[in-house]
Amino acid sequence: MQIVFLFYDGMTALDAIGPHEVLFRLPGVQVKRVAKRSGPIRTESADLQLTAEYALSEVSHADVLVVPGAGNATALRDHPEILSWVRAIHATTTWTTSVCTGSLILGAAGLLKGLPATSHWAVLDRLPGYGAEPKHARIVEAGKIITAAGVSAGIDMALTLAAKIAGPQVAQALQLGIEYDPEPPFDVGSPEKANPAILEGLRTRLMAKFENA
Amino acid sequence: MQIVFLFYDGMTALDAIGPHEVLFRLPGVQVKRVAKRSGPIRTESADLQLTAEYALSEVSHADVLVVPGAGNATALRDHPEILSWVRAIHATTTWTTSVCTGSLILGAAGLLKGLPATSHWAVLDRLPGYGAEPKHARIVEAGKIITAAGVSAGIDMALTLAAKIAGPQVAQALQLGIEYDPEPPFDVGSPEKANPAILEGLRTRLMAKFENA
Repeated sequence: MQIVFLFYDGMTALDAIGPHEVLFRLPGVQVKRVAKRSGPIRTESADLQLTAEYALSEVSHADVLVVPGAGNATALRDHPEILSWVRAIHATTTWTTSVCTGSLILGAAGLLKGLPATSHWAVLDRLPGYGAEPKHARIVEAGKIITAAGVSAGIDMALTLAAKIAGPQVAQALQLGIEYDPEPPFDVGSPEKANPAILEGLRTRLMAKFENA
Repeated sequence: MQIVFLFYDGMTALDAIGPHEVLFRLPGVQVKRVAKRSGPIRTESADLQLTAEYALSEVSHADVLVVPGAGNATALRDHPEILSWVRAIHATTTWTTSVCTGSLILGAAGLLKGLPATSHWAVLDRLPGYGAEPKHARIVEAGKIITAAGVSAGIDMALTLAAKIAGPQVAQALQLGIEYDPEPPFDVGSPEKANPAILEGLRTRLMAKFENA
């Protein structure tokens, strides 16, 4: 089984590495990291660099595709090669998945028309622009497409997907292996639980970055 | 404020990237990634590579040090330069932290003598060998040393640390920003919650890798 991660400059590292840490441990999988050009890519995170070993042109099939998001929309749009590659790969997948604003890439590639989908809470309202029906949920399944909410939701998505691929016992061992028994210090990880002033301040900062950088 | 991540070949990517995704977003911080030699390092995760921009010799101070773990003990021991660097940096820190088996590196560097500490559940019994008192807990604070449990616990640790550094409002905004409102698909992320057969099978596989690779 071939699991392919799309990497690109500006992507949010944890969007990719959360699912990566789960899925590479599945028995019998080959994992490939693919970007416009092979080599180091610069993430959103303070110059943290990850390496993509493959260029888009070198990968034409995936059993599972994982598309991470980015805090800045310029990383997501104006990349016709990426969008046409996503469309072509999607035609070969068993599962096409996204984390955070990665769902906007699926949307821009035309894959979400008429489908329910989720994204980071701050950009859920962008999904209808791609013909998708926004859902405020941690994970949304629509046929073979699975979209996850913001950043950390990719871990939940990957464990859910692992159970579909390899069964619940394997997925439970993966969850235990990464000791995923979360104890967040606050109960504020979703907009409806957050302090309204913190929520609106953060929304303003995130959207300024999303639109303008 | 300078936040320094120790990178090394064989490290578990999510151990580092979980806290990284939180801490680089703190206001006014500079984040450095440091390894024995600067350049790409190969993680535990299916050839996933991250880049360290600095060699050990180029970084002599950290306000916060983050030491990730690894699935294989050979990545942790027999690196006297790393251990002496960790000791030297620790003398300059406000907070010295570890994720997963990273606590065994702190232990090997002699920093945990007489202190309570945690680690991945599968290697908690190694902590007394370094004079530490093992605690099965998500996060253990002992003075300026904070150790976190396995892999995913680094996210909880980093948010807890963010609240200490920048206050609860900033930490809550960070948690909301990464939409950390976990919904694990199973309630099995800790040994006492796991199916005993899955737990023992996984322990055997993890320890074979930890001791022999």
